[in-house]
Amino acid sequence: MSAESDFTEDSVLEECQKFICEAVEKAGDIVRRGIDAVKKVEIKSNVFDLVTEYDGEVEDFLVSEIQKKYTNHKIIAEEKHAKEPLTEDPTWIIDPIDGTTSFVHGYPLVGISVALAYRKQLVIGVIYAPIQRELYCARRGHGTTMNGQKIHTSSVRQLINSLIGDEPSLASRDHYRNDILVRTYALCNRVSGIRAVGSAVLGLAYVARGILDCYQVVGIYPWDLAAGAIIVEEAGGVISHPDGSSFDIMNGSILVAANRELYDQILAFNREMNGKVLDLREKSTN
Amino acid sequence: MSAESDFTEDSVLEECQKFICEAVEKAGDIVRRGIDAVKKVEIKSNVFDLVTEYDGEVEDFLVSEIQKKYTNHKIIAEEKHAKEPLTEDPTWIIDPIDGTTSFVHGYPLVGISVALAYRKQLVIGVIYAPIQRELYCARRGHGTTMNGQKIHTSSVRQLINSLIGDEPSLASRDHYRNDILVRTYALCNRVSGIRAVGSAVLGLAYVARGILDCYQVVGIYPWDLAAGAIIVEEAGGVISHPDGSSFDIMNGSILVAANRELYDQILAFNREMNGKVLDLREKSTN
Repeated sequence: MSAESDFTEDSVLEECQKFICEAVEKAGDIVRRGIDAVKKVEIKSNVFDLVTEYDGEVEDFLVSEIQKKYTNHKIIAEEKHAKEPLTEDPTWIIDPIDGTTSFVHGYPLVGISVALAYRKQLVIGVIYAPIQRELYCARRGHGTTMNGQKIHTSSVRQLINSLIGDEPSLASRDHYRNDILVRTYALCNRVSGIRAVGSAVLGLAYVARGILDCYQVVGIYPWDLAAGAIIVEEAGGVISHPDGSSFDIMNGSILVAANRELYDQILAFNREMNGKVLDLREKSTN
Repeated sequence: MSAESDFTEDSVLEECQKFICEAVEKAGDIVRRGIDAVKKVEIKSNVFDLVTEYDGEVEDFLVSEIQKKYTNHKIIAEEKHAKEPLTEDPTWIIDPIDGTTSFVHGYPLVGISVALAYRKQLVIGVIYAPIQRELYCARRGHGTTMNGQKIHTSSVRQLINSLIGDEPSLASRDHYRNDILVRTYALCNRVSGIRAVGSAVLGLAYVARGILDCYQVVGIYPWDLAAGAIIVEEAGGVISHPDGSSFDIMNGSILVAANRELYDQILAFNREMNGKVLDLREKSTN
């Protein structure tokens, strides 16, 4: 069968969505089995970048399911398919366990994320929080559901009333430290609250569901953001990169807000912070 | 009956513990009913300090249950009994909903916290996370349980491998901004990850359960910390104030760590940061 012709039919996408939702829920068993178990933890690029045998097991399971059903589709995935480029072909973008550091510690806010892109556009996004058994699902033009119920972004319109997802952990990397912490520093008294979820996948799902109002991360990977991007958009949210430029699937930074009013305020805030620097120094003694 | 004589008997404390666990679980119904409902949100001291009708309803329920059973006990509680001093008498210390900002947004990490102090020592602590239905319970000398199963703090011994609870939201208050954000700034590349739970009550429960390794907050209230303090201690953790001084129930700051090795490292870190200042400035253009 030709993937090209099929993917203009919504019924084909609907079947894809049903298939991947079932696969991701099955993969949740692996995460639930692993979260409290003793794990083999390996360090990837550095001490802040961990992987366990369960990340590989989830990825292998999802890749195998997809390859059985869609023999000609491409795959971009965190652990073993990270270097594939995005083409016009149908391409599954997979993060087997987002929040691996949390997973290693048994901290339960972890998510499985799978998106389908076609002609370089996101058409399906699925996020599963296996510990809470929350399944978030979006198909282009059909809205977003959580466990089968339609969900929407929040109606909070003012930054000062908003609950924001922010990840100071990501400032462990020298290259990003200043920009991330400048925002944390300046946001703390301009929003109602800051939550570090520890998973971009769940942070985006939470904006879609309306329990966070904005979420922003920089310098991570396409598989962390692809499913969440369409899940937020289809739930009524606004997405871009943190500088306001249009979202590109293969860029690992994102800014999302519940609605246009909030988005404009957080983008103006980002622009105000652009060019600011945080310095840590000794208090002068005089 | 004389409270004084009774409270030297462990069987009396055991009955107290059973009673308050049941009451707190019943109070969870109110929180579950409220979390997704439209709420009347009132601003208390400032825009970062919110209260809803559900906070009052939980407090009224718990106070009424306690006063029916223990007519001569004293009560210190967030909403209507906040000004009571701690005496030698048996005193219940209550936070009806910790994480009110989260509760207002439907963000599910909220907790009910009740402690019993006698002769100014904590003897019982109960924390209930009503959305996740997690009941954490400690009695002096008898360890800590979660839903009836013994729990222990983690065995992580190095700060660089630890998952830390940190609350940059609390830096909304000018008086605390520098000290809180200096630590966030300097911690980000000295720990494995940072999580902002948004509830000190749950942050402490998570250290007791071993899914966070350290937790630290400053400038909040006795009712935020009392139950968590004994819950962490009885689970094997180490507690003090952030400067290393002995924990005083009526002081609203706390530092807890999973074990002595981690505690010594985080305390040394705090001392290193003492006297440091963060400055936000424009990037120089040369």
